[in-house]
Amino acid sequence: MELAFAKLDGLIPAVIQDHTSCEVLMLGFLNAEALERTQRTGEVHFYSRTRKRLWKKGESSGHVLRVRQLLFDCDADALLIRVDAVGPGVCHEGYRSCFFRELEPGGTSRIIAERTFSVEDVYGKKEAQ
Amino acid sequence: MELAFAKLDGLIPAVIQDHTSCEVLMLGFLNAEALERTQRTGEVHFYSRTRKRLWKKGESSGHVLRVRQLLFDCDADALLIRVDAVGPGVCHEGYRSCFFRELEPGGTSRIIAERTFSVEDVYGKKEAQ
Repeated sequence: MELAFAKLDGLIPAVIQDHTSCEVLMLGFLNAEALERTQRTGEVHFYSRTRKRLWKKGESSGHVLRVRQLLFDCDADALLIRVDAVGPGVCHEGYRSCFFRELEPGGTSRIIAERTFSVEDVYGKKEAQ
Repeated sequence: MELAFAKLDGLIPAVIQDHTSCEVLMLGFLNAEALERTQRTGEVHFYSRTRKRLWKKGESSGHVLRVRQLLFDCDADALLIRVDAVGPGVCHEGYRSCFFRELEPGGTSRIIAERTFSVEDVYGKKEAQ
């Protein structure tokens, strides 16, 4: 099975979904190496477009994502990774899901979730990962 | 609220999730115009990277996606659109979700879902949308 990495400069978007609650936790990008490491280790690795490097989700926080099921879509250009999310949340802003804000008509936004952990306690002054 | 369209050549990836079942149905890309139309009409519009044009999901099949909630992530570079999905499925290959195949170790794949509609009946010989 060949995934369409070429469609997006070597990257493929991946939806991260909690296997139990079905909540969508985050979206990240994988390159071929990140996919290989994810499959080999059973923990989700991404390629950071901002930092231009491979990283394991949770390498700082301990909030790793353990793969339960790895799906791909009809065009083989997107992944859906169903995971057990270790810890109280995946978002570096202290929420369970990175999708904690609603976009309202007119372009305003509002927060729809409660923080589940203290960012300072988990990340300190380190770069949030 | 400014979304980070610039990060990906004017596009932003959007996860489409069924509002009731919480199933992840597909992933598509929106540009600013697609987002404006999605918000104005209440039905999801995408920008097709392959066809290089705006399109409304369901414009051929009738399987439109009615917006229930529009969320964005911590970096404002991804959307999560929770929808009511009209019809038996969103995938142009006849499945409820585009994520109907599992990627197995070794690179093989297997289909994990049942078809929910006939592709020929819905799309005929038209371009699948």
